[in-house]
Amino acid sequence: MAADLRNATGADVRAACRRGELTTPTPGLALGFVQANLVVLPREWAFEFLLFCQRNPKPCPLLDVTEPGDSEARFVARGSDLRTDLPAYRVWKNGELVEEPTDISRHWRDDLVSFVIGCSFTFENALLAASVPVRHIEQNVNVPMYRTNIACRPGGRFSGPLVVSMRPLTPGEAVKATKICSRFPRAHGAPVHLGDPAAIGIGDIAKPDFGDPVEIRAGELPVFWACGVTPQAALIQAKPPFAITHKPGHMFLTDVRDVDLDVE
Amino acid sequence: MAADLRNATGADVRAACRRGELTTPTPGLALGFVQANLVVLPREWAFEFLLFCQRNPKPCPLLDVTEPGDSEARFVARGSDLRTDLPAYRVWKNGELVEEPTDISRHWRDDLVSFVIGCSFTFENALLAASVPVRHIEQNVNVPMYRTNIACRPGGRFSGPLVVSMRPLTPGEAVKATKICSRFPRAHGAPVHLGDPAAIGIGDIAKPDFGDPVEIRAGELPVFWACGVTPQAALIQAKPPFAITHKPGHMFLTDVRDVDLDVE
Repeated sequence: MAADLRNATGADVRAACRRGELTTPTPGLALGFVQANLVVLPREWAFEFLLFCQRNPKPCPLLDVTEPGDSEARFVARGSDLRTDLPAYRVWKNGELVEEPTDISRHWRDDLVSFVIGCSFTFENALLAASVPVRHIEQNVNVPMYRTNIACRPGGRFSGPLVVSMRPLTPGEAVKATKICSRFPRAHGAPVHLGDPAAIGIGDIAKPDFGDPVEIRAGELPVFWACGVTPQAALIQAKPPFAITHKPGHMFLTDVRDVDLDVE
Repeated sequence: MAADLRNATGADVRAACRRGELTTPTPGLALGFVQANLVVLPREWAFEFLLFCQRNPKPCPLLDVTEPGDSEARFVARGSDLRTDLPAYRVWKNGELVEEPTDISRHWRDDLVSFVIGCSFTFENALLAASVPVRHIEQNVNVPMYRTNIACRPGGRFSGPLVVSMRPLTPGEAVKATKICSRFPRAHGAPVHLGDPAAIGIGDIAKPDFGDPVEIRAGELPVFWACGVTPQAALIQAKPPFAITHKPGHMFLTDVRDVDLDVE
């Protein structure tokens, strides 16, 4: 199923999720369409989370924020339903992960505000087009993600470490990737670090905190980008009574083209 | 006084305001430092205004948002006091302008949230450095600003027309300015229109809605940028019981360098 969706549109991927046919990670799907992280919180916590995002734009670039109770991301995906259109979700209570459903309709409430946050899968199409390899797509796995020792700026009750995604590249490819990704500030933009994982508090590069490990070949450096899983680390610390997020790597596909994000 | 502050720092300009020595518009002051618009609202209205900004990033690029009651813009101007550090303010009640003080200390409340929003004065230093003329600095007046017929995306109770600033340029200079300003998305970025004012609902280019008129010479086009006075038009429509803004053209000077905004 997933392989068929490589050249699909964002709407095709959403429809496959809604029908329950896609429950796996989304890297490489609907190439050229903007992918997004999801955070859903009660209205009572929404202002403080918006503050957190505003103060940490590299991990949390906001693409769309809904009015309370509205489950459509109307500015980036008209006709979407955030309750059914992702492959998999995480339900959180008091900062603890309690469930990983593929549909959140039965959890929905009138006071829920949804935050649609840019994702680095968005620029992978541009990397591939420029012959920069994307290892986790080559190996057909989820991208590796790590907690770092870099602290986010607190916002209201939210704080926590920066989470990063990693792609192995040669130094020359890393320079090329930096130029390309600089064009996509709303999809995490340029890398935040390259080389020594320990310098940003990553103990074992072979053991990601989220997603899957990938091969790092001779002559390659690990290159790290701010990641939209960062809010999940902040949720664990802030402990709101109720929250929903996407499951890492299982993203929301929008109707926005990566090239439009570039020139907006 | 103002002329002495052309090569000052952002902190120098804030200090001059705080001492009551600067009560005039700020274009051309502390060249190279990021200038900002101000909107202050009660916590009860803050989430909806954040929504409005998130949905209208061209007129409302957020540089800093405070915790309720905090009068320091600590992420862009450490040690600042938003109650005293601008040359002039506007106090609004139920969407009506009721006062234009030079200090808002006596209006301060514990529930007020301050929004510091990017300003096009920021990129004027880069324009001048590239020999692109800035007419209102040449003529030593405030920039001309106009209401347009372009509607902003509503956010909560906020909606209203896009307000634009205008600088007259030759076509060649307009292309150069577009390239330069594209590097500053958090200071309104590239122009939103150039040429015919009527195409965006501006009736008389010689009569700006805010600021001062400037000369448009033979061979020049008016070039329009999204403007941080846009939230003031939204305040008039939303009618919150209480709000404070800067007086148009009388901006908050930050400690952020324009070049840092460029590479952030």
